[in-house]
Amino acid sequence: MSSQANGSSKRHPVLTKSSINPAVLEVEYAVRGELALKADKYTHELADGKKDLPFDKVVTANIGNPQQKGLDQVPITYWRQVISLLEYPNLMEEHLEIAKQIYPSDVIARAKSLHEEIGSVGAYTVSKGILGIRKRVAKFIEERDGYPADPENIYLTAGASAGVSQILGIALQKGDGCMIPIPQYPLYTATLAYVSAKPLPYYLSEADNWSLNHDTLVQTIEKAKKDNTPVKALVIINPGNPTGACLPEDAMKQVVQLCYDHGIVLMADEVYQYNIFDPENKPFISFKKVLRSMPKEVAETVELISFHSISKGVSGECGRRGGYFECTNLSDEVMEQVYKMASVSLCPPVTGQVGVDLLVSPPKPGEPSYDLWKTETTTTLSHLKERSQFMGERFNSLPGMSCQPADGAMYLFPRIEMPQKAIAEAKKQGKAADVMYALDLLDATGICAVAGSGFGQEPDTYHLRVTALCPGVENYVAKIEKFHKDFMSKWQ
Amino acid sequence: MSSQANGSSKRHPVLTKSSINPAVLEVEYAVRGELALKADKYTHELADGKKDLPFDKVVTANIGNPQQKGLDQVPITYWRQVISLLEYPNLMEEHLEIAKQIYPSDVIARAKSLHEEIGSVGAYTVSKGILGIRKRVAKFIEERDGYPADPENIYLTAGASAGVSQILGIALQKGDGCMIPIPQYPLYTATLAYVSAKPLPYYLSEADNWSLNHDTLVQTIEKAKKDNTPVKALVIINPGNPTGACLPEDAMKQVVQLCYDHGIVLMADEVYQYNIFDPENKPFISFKKVLRSMPKEVAETVELISFHSISKGVSGECGRRGGYFECTNLSDEVMEQVYKMASVSLCPPVTGQVGVDLLVSPPKPGEPSYDLWKTETTTTLSHLKERSQFMGERFNSLPGMSCQPADGAMYLFPRIEMPQKAIAEAKKQGKAADVMYALDLLDATGICAVAGSGFGQEPDTYHLRVTALCPGVENYVAKIEKFHKDFMSKWQ
Repeated sequence: MSSQANGSSKRHPVLTKSSINPAVLEVEYAVRGELALKADKYTHELADGKKDLPFDKVVTANIGNPQQKGLDQVPITYWRQVISLLEYPNLMEEHLEIAKQIYPSDVIARAKSLHEEIGSVGAYTVSKGILGIRKRVAKFIEERDGYPADPENIYLTAGASAGVSQILGIALQKGDGCMIPIPQYPLYTATLAYVSAKPLPYYLSEADNWSLNHDTLVQTIEKAKKDNTPVKALVIINPGNPTGACLPEDAMKQVVQLCYDHGIVLMADEVYQYNIFDPENKPFISFKKVLRSMPKEVAETVELISFHSISKGVSGECGRRGGYFECTNLSDEVMEQVYKMASVSLCPPVTGQVGVDLLVSPPKPGEPSYDLWKTETTTTLSHLKERSQFMGERFNSLPGMSCQPADGAMYLFPRIEMPQKAIAEAKKQGKAADVMYALDLLDATGICAVAGSGFGQEPDTYHLRVTALCPGVENYVAKIEKFHKDFMSKWQ
Repeated sequence: MSSQANGSSKRHPVLTKSSINPAVLEVEYAVRGELALKADKYTHELADGKKDLPFDKVVTANIGNPQQKGLDQVPITYWRQVISLLEYPNLMEEHLEIAKQIYPSDVIARAKSLHEEIGSVGAYTVSKGILGIRKRVAKFIEERDGYPADPENIYLTAGASAGVSQILGIALQKGDGCMIPIPQYPLYTATLAYVSAKPLPYYLSEADNWSLNHDTLVQTIEKAKKDNTPVKALVIINPGNPTGACLPEDAMKQVVQLCYDHGIVLMADEVYQYNIFDPENKPFISFKKVLRSMPKEVAETVELISFHSISKGVSGECGRRGGYFECTNLSDEVMEQVYKMASVSLCPPVTGQVGVDLLVSPPKPGEPSYDLWKTETTTTLSHLKERSQFMGERFNSLPGMSCQPADGAMYLFPRIEMPQKAIAEAKKQGKAADVMYALDLLDATGICAVAGSGFGQEPDTYHLRVTALCPGVENYVAKIEKFHKDFMSKWQ
């Protein structure tokens, strides 16, 4: 058979939009889409010396990336000291005397103990993650909740996202329904599309500070039943992304009961559990704790998977890729499948695992590193809170913009009263009006923030998600204000 | 509706083997299955002081994990020095004068330059990986192959496995055929099962040093056509895992032509490209180079994705999770989908990306770190080669065992002439005979090596994959020999 005779045009390229996995085409991911590409382009142009842009730097307020260049969240010194010793253990051996001039004694002791436990951070670990670290995660959960946790039910992961993908990929069959909040972090819709499961949106109530309404959940379930979609799982993000809302205990109990009544698996994305602005009045409560506090029948039945991460909180170590999930009430036969799938991806990054260890067992009062650790973490959290409040107030005072205050997390999700003319123009451009708004904002100010339509929102409402991570917040907000006023008068 | 009235037994647990994603049940992964669990159990028992085992340590020869405890491959000093500075940049700032007593000047310069380029290693990077590093990967490929490479076609990944999963997940539709070598690294069968694609095995020729036979490939394609299975992709592992065979250029050209003729996407797993024992006579040649050397029509048509990793080679940094893939001749519309899917998983671990940088641009002759780097890498490679040859010879001198010598990689795959009685007993136990052999080997010696059936093999043949990473190889081989002789006489 001659290749010429067949002609390459018939068969090549083999991979086209119509020949690849069709589920991939359904995936959408707004946080790093057109907007992010355009922001990258501007960044490179500025680096190459381009002068005719109306801004001199790009502010990437589109992703919760606390340690990125230009932001002021510095890594926690204790973390980096411990990890640098693990990376180059010779500092604790041949060069120990010199290292002692730099590293506090508790850092060296911690690194030595981890080094002995783990060995080289360049070696694969067991697929579930290092046992000693999982034991310390279990202890952390027990102390947080007051209920026991079993290290064998804990899996270390390459960030919470990897855990969420793994679990959704195991739990859901094609066509299964998975309830997700709207607005939501788009990882969920993207992953559901990839596994050909069906997102079942439930709307959070903006007017009531983005609260979770029990009737809305019930309606979503009833609608799915009418459509013959099996409701397999319910995702809750608490504290909320992008809303910043923190769930009260009563609402959480109702959720757990609902899962019990309807046979639904609960997936709790709790990666912002440390980012709480008013812990006395609006504390973070874990779903594990709420579940365990329910009557035995419920407490020992409802299947819960909860996710945590080193990427958020006050550590902000997203680039390291570390996190964990805890499975509660999953059957042994399913846990075996979870183990098998974790094995295929070998193991999470080892210094990500170490990050989880440092997250769950920070320095203790009295140890040499404690004061600095305390200062650094307190400062980061208070800056986040101050900026969040400042931004919320300023957004609320703008005509055509309103903003629910955040209880936690690291975002604000202001609402834009979009002018009809802007809506019409965006429609012409084939875009949602808030996408046009976000792209125009980037063009005018260099500020990169994601349109509400990337997270989902009630029909005919328009939002913008901005992170509360930016230093020089006064100037940052002033730019958004000026742009917003110009935009509103342009489309009046 | 009362929860009691419904009864929990009806609906709970929600997740069972019959309700979860059925593709997950199809996934098999021998490298970390029953054997690995048993090895873990023994390790913990030994750590807890158990004395009545017939061995005093577990030797995990089941995974290519060069830096694991008990093995002698030490991390490359240059790598760890650079990364420790990036982890704690204060060593290059406030503590620079002290650090200069420890770190060579080129290490400090390299770390400073990377720090300036990347910023914090705790921040997310762009989804494709840091642009500067992708540029240097392109340069490495150009220098290796003598043909241009475009950084925009290069994606940094969390190890080669993550890249393979991503690409197979995008390229293959349900039911698509993907040709895989037998024996093969089980990542491929596992991933194909997960994406519901169909593995199309082609047998490597053991008698001819595990060579790739063109006719076998053609037969596999013809068989698939008869079964109405579209042949979408062809995976080649070169150098081979578990075979250690290194492909000659002629065979590679035939493969590329075959892909052109039949409209097949080529996936080249080239993670062992640096592990070559006889570079003069059996050099590694990349598929990119072979493809580009073909007539224009082929060179600019056949779609190739090639994978590389920091986990193998002489770096052996598996725990860091770093690697890359390069796409050649993929259409723009498909590259957009690749970009989108990379975005969903945010970014590969940053120090894994740095590892890729250190892999593709090591210290240069004349720089202060060069001599040590050269000594370390040469020693690692020569140890690997010596052990591989030593083990191969000893295995070949054993009755009932034969072993093809390896050209590279880090494994041997000796064949066991399994006694009929052992086959019958294994059948009774519901196991493949070589799985029984491997479990018995572990029980008797503490050596954990994977049975050939985990990698696939010709029917009625039996193998064992052992890594050539173990120090004290004399003692290690002696234990296998003793066990083997006992096993053979037991089942004679």
